[in-house]
Amino acid sequence: MHKKPLILVTNDDGITAPGIAYLVSIAKKMGDVLVVAPDKPQSGMGHAITINSTLRVQATKHYGLETEFSCTGTPVDCVKMAINSLMLRKPDLILSGINHGSNLSINVIYSGTMSAAVEGAVEGVPSIGISLCDYAHEADFTQSGTFIETIIDAVLKKGLPKGVCLNVNIPKLKSDELKGIKVCRQANALWLEHFDERKDPYGRSYYWLTGEFKNLEPTAKDTDVWANENGYISVVPTHADMTAYEALAGLKKSMEG
Amino acid sequence: MHKKPLILVTNDDGITAPGIAYLVSIAKKMGDVLVVAPDKPQSGMGHAITINSTLRVQATKHYGLETEFSCTGTPVDCVKMAINSLMLRKPDLILSGINHGSNLSINVIYSGTMSAAVEGAVEGVPSIGISLCDYAHEADFTQSGTFIETIIDAVLKKGLPKGVCLNVNIPKLKSDELKGIKVCRQANALWLEHFDERKDPYGRSYYWLTGEFKNLEPTAKDTDVWANENGYISVVPTHADMTAYEALAGLKKSMEG
Repeated sequence: MHKKPLILVTNDDGITAPGIAYLVSIAKKMGDVLVVAPDKPQSGMGHAITINSTLRVQATKHYGLETEFSCTGTPVDCVKMAINSLMLRKPDLILSGINHGSNLSINVIYSGTMSAAVEGAVEGVPSIGISLCDYAHEADFTQSGTFIETIIDAVLKKGLPKGVCLNVNIPKLKSDELKGIKVCRQANALWLEHFDERKDPYGRSYYWLTGEFKNLEPTAKDTDVWANENGYISVVPTHADMTAYEALAGLKKSMEG
Repeated sequence: MHKKPLILVTNDDGITAPGIAYLVSIAKKMGDVLVVAPDKPQSGMGHAITINSTLRVQATKHYGLETEFSCTGTPVDCVKMAINSLMLRKPDLILSGINHGSNLSINVIYSGTMSAAVEGAVEGVPSIGISLCDYAHEADFTQSGTFIETIIDAVLKKGLPKGVCLNVNIPKLKSDELKGIKVCRQANALWLEHFDERKDPYGRSYYWLTGEFKNLEPTAKDTDVWANENGYISVVPTHADMTAYEALAGLKKSMEG
């Protein structure tokens, strides 16, 4: 590629989060950068889109870029709007993140960060969702900078299979403790939920959703959870096809009659 | 199963939508029914969960059931709350729908109806999301009643593979025009978006997300879109594993170095 690649950056923690600021600084080294990101935190929004109400965008000046907008919608809205309304041509790459917190395993379906990347893949753009397994606002994103650049560079040079994006998760380690990059599958896991019931000042109940992450295959070494727990940055090729192919034959027998 | 199965019914169009009312009437014939559903329309909410704010539930009397609640959250919140807070034991089956409108193909990732079913599967409960390809409030859900009962009955008798739910889509046809049930894979499709820009009374721009559905493989006969277009009720086994397995080997080569 002779001309600079066009890179769209988005996230789900909102346009002013430290994670997206660091990702923009990396992207600037690698191409021409645009930012379209939510105007407020959108964690846990999954693949939500705004169809029962309207969207607004606002030009911002956080990153000194020619094109940067905050958007009232979800991360997926941001990608759709950037590609179909705000950009003159499709980007060569979409980067989503860096998320403050893990998007390992089952979290891919709840994650706004990853949903933005999946949406990019659906729209035919090589896309990478990046998450640091540290929920702190002041998390140190710089420790893994070199690895992130390596991954982005590989995608810019070689592309990705059609419809596939990457789910990148970085363990909370110092740069010299990170062992490298591991390509993995999504671990089979779930959240064991607990609803914390409280009373409002008027005596009425309300609930906070809380939970504990449970890896259902802790000994399997080919999963993203294992890789992270063992010091590796995990990379899971991810697509929007949720068909359980292994169940097709059995169901044909029992359903088609 | 000697005792009556315990069936949880939810949806994404809200607890008073005609589609859920019809589904409750079917479920009542087949087991003991509980309803936990959103208190307002939640279309397009995907797998969103409520983590930045709180949830409330309200006992309702729409269906004359002992246990029925409207919930301020998303369809996935409803399933999590029902299983982990409102029910004494896990349900034997979760039914989500009947959605007013298609959840074929790529719509599985945007759909609150299907996300509730996927969440059920993740939590280990056989789950079925059902959609009628008719967006009208007064859509005629009764035409496919016999087929819906057949599908539910098969799942109650034989269960589903672990982690797998069903995405059922019904074409808008009269009962004698419906050709039967076809077990399919999710078609590869996308939405070609258009953002309809308008001006508010104060001269500021706002946008409506609109789009046109595009099936990228119109001649493939093993997809849910083909089945629906040809008069069949489509049944797609669906799971939360979004790993693109076919991409693992190539990426290992390019990324792990």
